[in-house]
Amino acid sequence: MGNLVKEFNDYRSKMNEKLLADNNKIVKRIFNLDTNAYTEGALDVKTKELLGLVASTVLRCDDCVKYHLENCHKEGISKEEMMEAMGIATLVGGTIVIPHLRRAYEFWEELENVE
Amino acid sequence: MGNLVKEFNDYRSKMNEKLLADNNKIVKRIFNLDTNAYTEGALDVKTKELLGLVASTVLRCDDCVKYHLENCHKEGISKEEMMEAMGIATLVGGTIVIPHLRRAYEFWEELENVE
Amino acid sequence: MGNLVKEFNDYRSKMNEKLLADNNKIVKRIFNLDTNAYTEGALDVKTKELLGLVASTVLRCDDCVKYHLENCHKEGISKEEMMEAMGIATLVGGTIVIPHLRRAYEFWEELENVE
Amino acid sequence: MGNLVKEFNDYRSKMNEKLLADNNKIVKRIFNLDTNAYTEGALDVKTKELLGLVASTVLRCDDCVKYHLENCHKEGISKEEMMEAMGIATLVGGTIVIPHLRRAYEFWEELENVE
Amino acid sequence: MGNLVKEFNDYRSKMNEKLLADNNKIVKRIFNLDTNAYTEGALDVKTKELLGLVASTVLRCDDCVKYHLENCHKEGISKEEMMEAMGIATLVGGTIVIPHLRRAYEFWEELENVE
Amino acid sequence: MGNLVKEFNDYRSKMNEKLLADNNKIVKRIFNLDTNAYTEGALDVKTKELLGLVASTVLRCDDCVKYHLENCHKEGISKEEMMEAMGIATLVGGTIVIPHLRRAYEFWEELENVE
Repeated sequence: MGNLVKEFNDYRSKMNEKLLADNNKIVKRIFNLDTNAYTEGALDVKTKELLGLVASTVLRCDDCVKYHLENCHKEGISKEEMMEAMGIATLVGGTIVIPHLRRAYEFWEELENVE
Repeated sequence: MGNLVKEFNDYRSKMNEKLLADNNKIVKRIFNLDTNAYTEGALDVKTKELLGLVASTVLRCDDCVKYHLENCHKEGISKEEMMEAMGIATLVGGTIVIPHLRRAYEFWEELENVE
Repeated sequence: MGNLVKEFNDYRSKMNEKLLADNNKIVKRIFNLDTNAYTEGALDVKTKELLGLVASTVLRCDDCVKYHLENCHKEGISKEEMMEAMGIATLVGGTIVIPHLRRAYEFWEELENVE
Repeated sequence: MGNLVKEFNDYRSKMNEKLLADNNKIVKRIFNLDTNAYTEGALDVKTKELLGLVASTVLRCDDCVKYHLENCHKEGISKEEMMEAMGIATLVGGTIVIPHLRRAYEFWEELENVE
Repeated sequence: MGNLVKEFNDYRSKMNEKLLADNNKIVKRIFNLDTNAYTEGALDVKTKELLGLVASTVLRCDDCVKYHLENCHKEGISKEEMMEAMGIATLVGGTIVIPHLRRAYEFWEELENVE
Repeated sequence: MGNLVKEFNDYRSKMNEKLLADNNKIVKRIFNLDTNAYTEGALDVKTKELLGLVASTVLRCDDCVKYHLENCHKEGISKEEMMEAMGIATLVGGTIVIPHLRRAYEFWEELENVE
């Protein structure tokens, strides 16, 4: 697995475990909701992951972008589809999104190299 | 047409005309890009409008939300699909999104009553 | 009750009812969490409402500010305490918070006049 | 004076007076800083007002935009200069800035009609 | 002292000294206000630090979060109290706050290990 | 060239090349607009770069700040002028801007040491 991908996942898993062990009820429930929100419903998982990706991008949260990029990649979303979603995010969110777009693109390349 | 919908569209059209007549090159090109970004590509129009809706919602721009709600409605997106997208936006963006969700829901009801 | 207060509460109640009747699971659970998060725990209700107020103010959500101002007022928080919290919010969030501070102050005056 | 301009100034003056009378030290000092920051220094007043305008626009604070538009107009900044600044703000901040651009343009027209 | 804590404090001190030596009047006064705002008043220091923590968290400023976590820890705020405040911040600010929550939790652990 | 400056420019160039080679039309046009927006017009390049700097700072985008700092430096903007612009940004955007101000100051020092 690419370095960026592995590092991100390792830190994320380690800290999520600690947060869930901490037993704060509100935090635990938000984590739980976060899992439920992206399951199939009226919209399919692919669409929902793209929605999560764009929301994370316009709010400029690199870690959230990485998380949804990884899920998008697992769902079989193509690079072209991902880039169309990111293009919308960059247009809506403005040029301040561009540094996040650079990091997202680098992360996606690592995801593809893993295969 | 519902009052909220008509008022929004009238003001939007009037001011967009003035802005485009003003002849600032950057503003004109951004308006132009905004039209292009939501046309069919690797992703279909429905998906792109949902992406625009969620981006607008987490950035809490009521007018942008109204604009994309109207396009979503025209594209035949169901209330249930719209609400799943808005649920993701509320989860990602937090409870500060709720007042915008209330206004979005009211606007959607007017869009449905127009038919 | 002051006009601003009544108008805010009426619209809020009407639309919250509709949103909860809509039956989107994610939205319903977020509403539910929102009630739980401000109940007494390691921190008392007064402190939690001040936290909600400051979070809403720096994120510049007028409706969220109103909601927490009303709860702060019910909890017996004094105008001086409220203003110290709002002073911190204005310092952390910058001068763009000032227009929201003006509207918050006006709303608080109405809350006090109700008594 | 145009309606939008007069209404904005009246409410702003009334509430600022109340806030300053309230005697919260932090709020008073921030108001004081706000006056000092835009006086002539290494940069001239015109440039500083344009900086205030663009900062307010990308942070999407309509009232702050109006305040700086009024000062820009008083400083003799032309419509073309104002629009170039707003073009940069729209590019940096993205299409979510457009609704604020519409309202800014309308406010500027009223400022020009006052003469 | 934990590595994260020491690194953060060292860089912060070094650069703050430079910024204050630079003699920009506005920046100096904002630094000064920042010290005054968190001193005891109608609200006690503990409450004010929690307000600063939550404001920093919803605005997703890791360095500001670290600064207030350190002050909270010095004021004797318990982990449970800190986590209730962070739970409110995560709910109000949404799941994009979670990566900041992970880093905050890690920083708090280091603060506790210092003792 | 200073390390921070070189690292930033190298990564930025490498990833921009990849993004432009990717051929997403929306992204390419936004990059193109970004170049056009800062060329001389009714406002001169110096003023426009200061506007870009302040917009980037209040939106707290470190990479965008670095990019505009570098251009400001090339345009012969003095440290005092840069700091007045950053002072306005810190006042408008609040104390959450301070960590970005620290990093901006460090980057400017490297830009000056390059000469």
